[in-house]
Amino acid sequence: MKGKIMGLRSVEWKDNAIRIIDQTRLPTRLEYIYLKDLRSLRQAIKQLRVRGAPALGAIAALGVYLGIKDARCKDFSALAARLDKITSYLGSARPTARNLFWGLEVMAEAALENKDQPLSRIKKILLRKARGIIEEDRRSCRGIASYGQKLIKDNDVILTVCNAGILATIDYGTALGVIYRAKEEGKKIKVYACETRPLLQGARLTTWELKQKGVEVTLICDNMAATLMRQKKISKVITGADRIAANGDTANKIGTLNLAVLSRFYAIPFYVAAPFSTIDTDTKSGKDIPIEERDPGEVSDMFFRRRTCAKGIKIFNPAFDLTDHRLITAMITDKGIIKPPYSLNIKKKIAKNAHK
Amino acid sequence: MKGKIMGLRSVEWKDNAIRIIDQTRLPTRLEYIYLKDLRSLRQAIKQLRVRGAPALGAIAALGVYLGIKDARCKDFSALAARLDKITSYLGSARPTARNLFWGLEVMAEAALENKDQPLSRIKKILLRKARGIIEEDRRSCRGIASYGQKLIKDNDVILTVCNAGILATIDYGTALGVIYRAKEEGKKIKVYACETRPLLQGARLTTWELKQKGVEVTLICDNMAATLMRQKKISKVITGADRIAANGDTANKIGTLNLAVLSRFYAIPFYVAAPFSTIDTDTKSGKDIPIEERDPGEVSDMFFRRRTCAKGIKIFNPAFDLTDHRLITAMITDKGIIKPPYSLNIKKKIAKNAHK
Repeated sequence: MKGKIMGLRSVEWKDNAIRIIDQTRLPTRLEYIYLKDLRSLRQAIKQLRVRGAPALGAIAALGVYLGIKDARCKDFSALAARLDKITSYLGSARPTARNLFWGLEVMAEAALENKDQPLSRIKKILLRKARGIIEEDRRSCRGIASYGQKLIKDNDVILTVCNAGILATIDYGTALGVIYRAKEEGKKIKVYACETRPLLQGARLTTWELKQKGVEVTLICDNMAATLMRQKKISKVITGADRIAANGDTANKIGTLNLAVLSRFYAIPFYVAAPFSTIDTDTKSGKDIPIEERDPGEVSDMFFRRRTCAKGIKIFNPAFDLTDHRLITAMITDKGIIKPPYSLNIKKKIAKNAHK
Repeated sequence: MKGKIMGLRSVEWKDNAIRIIDQTRLPTRLEYIYLKDLRSLRQAIKQLRVRGAPALGAIAALGVYLGIKDARCKDFSALAARLDKITSYLGSARPTARNLFWGLEVMAEAALENKDQPLSRIKKILLRKARGIIEEDRRSCRGIASYGQKLIKDNDVILTVCNAGILATIDYGTALGVIYRAKEEGKKIKVYACETRPLLQGARLTTWELKQKGVEVTLICDNMAATLMRQKKISKVITGADRIAANGDTANKIGTLNLAVLSRFYAIPFYVAAPFSTIDTDTKSGKDIPIEERDPGEVSDMFFRRRTCAKGIKIFNPAFDLTDHRLITAMITDKGIIKPPYSLNIKKKIAKNAHK
């Protein structure tokens, strides 16, 4: 099994289709599925067969190529119209994740830049671009891990939520990548994983991944985090991010805000690890980030043998929450660590990278 | 169904046995079971077929009677030895709940007070005593509700955890009793119920109860509470208590501490509602309260169609947590509202009631 995860890739272009690990089957089965058309791709995104902000960026890009590879457009404007359609079709699958839109935008721009090329050439360029995004994600995760591991001390006990690992990216992870890298550096680390209701990505995916990678992990229910902190068992919290606003407000899996508030109360550093592309400077603050509400059935019965509540009970099921930037100790990105004040330091980081 | 709940009694002495509602079958089925011996009683307590601190006090008392009703002891010291055995047998079923031990102690004292009576008479006295505890619980809940409802305003939106209602008491509830009474007073109230992993008492029991009683309720996963508070949707938090130490530190269902910390951060009043008998002045502070850890299977698979995590994953499953008294705005008891400083005000309340 260890061999399996070493070469594991959550998203790949293979046999003229997008091959993904069906994450709804884990941890029971490691099963690959091939997505051959936009409809099944969009459904796989909606059903969380593929998930995780960075992985969504990659799959969006591959999705654009999937949508145009067999297209017969008479000119570029016909292609552009088709790209528009694909972008809104895939972009509406999940409203919160920045990387999804980012992947779609990058592809649309690449097409536009090459509008004078013949269609067959543009198609090739777009496939190369999508593959480039995949490689960029791999590099980016390694960058995050490399900066992040410096923050990790020997014998740290790290709490995390949802899955910000191999399965959320291409093959290394953001929050978990930091842990993998620190372990590779010889640091001894223990992890507590919040199960992450309603869909249990922490229980199903994170504990599975960490175990494969030989990291000591203990599973808890989400409501047990406070007790661990009270008992001084947690030295750091690291989570991923689905979108980061210009002021540092961060949307991530529901339960993240909870951990951020607890961390503040118990004076534990709270880190967000994400590719720099997760920062959306067009979004001023958390108020401007739409939060996806998902099917109440996820709470009442999706994973249960029997209903968890009587029929007809009202259910609130936001998939993400917003963590105020003031609660975040630092952001770990592939362009380096960003500390408060975020509005200023994000701008500086952008300027610095533009000059490179 | 409404008629059903109006006359609902979670625990009762009936047909020469203890009749309980099997709470593990709710909300799917409202099913009564009869406990005819100590072994099945202890198992029902351990398996949470009957649960809730006040209900445990009542059932412990009935359990003592169940254990001696057919006993043939040659003298009181033989009976006392038998009572000792019953007390440690039932008392070890759940280590955290104060009321369980309290119910056992009250019965042992009642026996001792009547040690000169014939055995058949003592048996009758103990049955009357146990029934008295049941009636006392009913009065006590109504007392809590009566004091507590004064704290509730029209249009309050109340967050609660686990089940501190009819099913946790005899027939009215502590935290939920306050809500029922406020509603009876004509106040409009909405409730959010945390599902309360791992065993989902909030989802299964609280939403069911509230719906039967016509209270508007919305179910959330435990990790969504922070978002509701951030959105200013919660005006008060009310929970029950399993044991309150002399300094006010409170043991209650896992997840309570989480809500207390969040309430502090978002400046929301956090109330604990419990019978005064839940206060254990022999326990100086939370440090002295043993916290029950339960089977990891409750987290990994008890309620799920399939395992939530891979086999062999370590799991931490504390059934309760400890809320620091500094996080509690006030305690709602049947002897009145107790405010900080708790050490002092609990002592005062005891002194005042001793003089009555």
